[in-house]
Amino acid sequence: MQKINLKQKFSKLLEYWSPRVISEMNDYQIKIVKIKGDFIWHNHEETDELFYVIEGQMSIHFVDSTVFLDKGELFIVPKGVEHMPSAEEECLIMLIEPRGIKNTGNKDADLTAENDIWI
Amino acid sequence: MQKINLKQKFSKLLEYWSPRVISEMNDYQIKIVKIKGDFIWHNHEETDELFYVIEGQMSIHFVDSTVFLDKGELFIVPKGVEHMPSAEEECLIMLIEPRGIKNTGNKDADLTAENDIWI
Repeated sequence: MQKINLKQKFSKLLEYWSPRVISEMNDYQIKIVKIKGDFIWHNHEETDELFYVIEGQMSIHFVDSTVFLDKGELFIVPKGVEHMPSAEEECLIMLIEPRGIKNTGNKDADLTAENDIWI
Repeated sequence: MQKINLKQKFSKLLEYWSPRVISEMNDYQIKIVKIKGDFIWHNHEETDELFYVIEGQMSIHFVDSTVFLDKGELFIVPKGVEHMPSAEEECLIMLIEPRGIKNTGNKDADLTAENDIWI
């Protein structure tokens, strides 16, 4: 029962591509992440994933297309769909997905972040 | 697989207190709603409910306290908790909750909106 100010939470984020949990709704987690550069290609076999751009701009690359997202735009990546998030400049994102989802999905990589870390 | 620009969606909203679905993530719906004035006291026995303020300011009144939310602030109302949303001036909100949740929860009222209407 506590409100969350996203800008305050983002100011505490140190590393790129390291999602941090800010709240939970039922068995879903609300996360924030700061991104820059290219992530890795991956998919989440078990769930859709919500991206909402809070500041900046990003792209989500798919095998056959790319979606460009500006501040205030939202996109749901369907479960099982291979994708690669990317941002030319620093971009701040809110992510929503079920508890326990690994950021690199079906891949283990240097960018695989520890899960369920709150900020 | 289509991006959603929240401001464009909000520009189509006509009535206050009438949530419209803009996307789905698994069995959850992403909704937008434009509010002004007082809603009614109610609770959702089956689910938490996410409020995120996109423009403006609102309050969520509880039996023993009130939470004031500014633009960029997020609040999860826990399931079963009696609450009454309110806004002195027009306020634009994103709501997330499972598909099929009635806006007035355990109450039937003039403000009960038709469910699952997309915009």
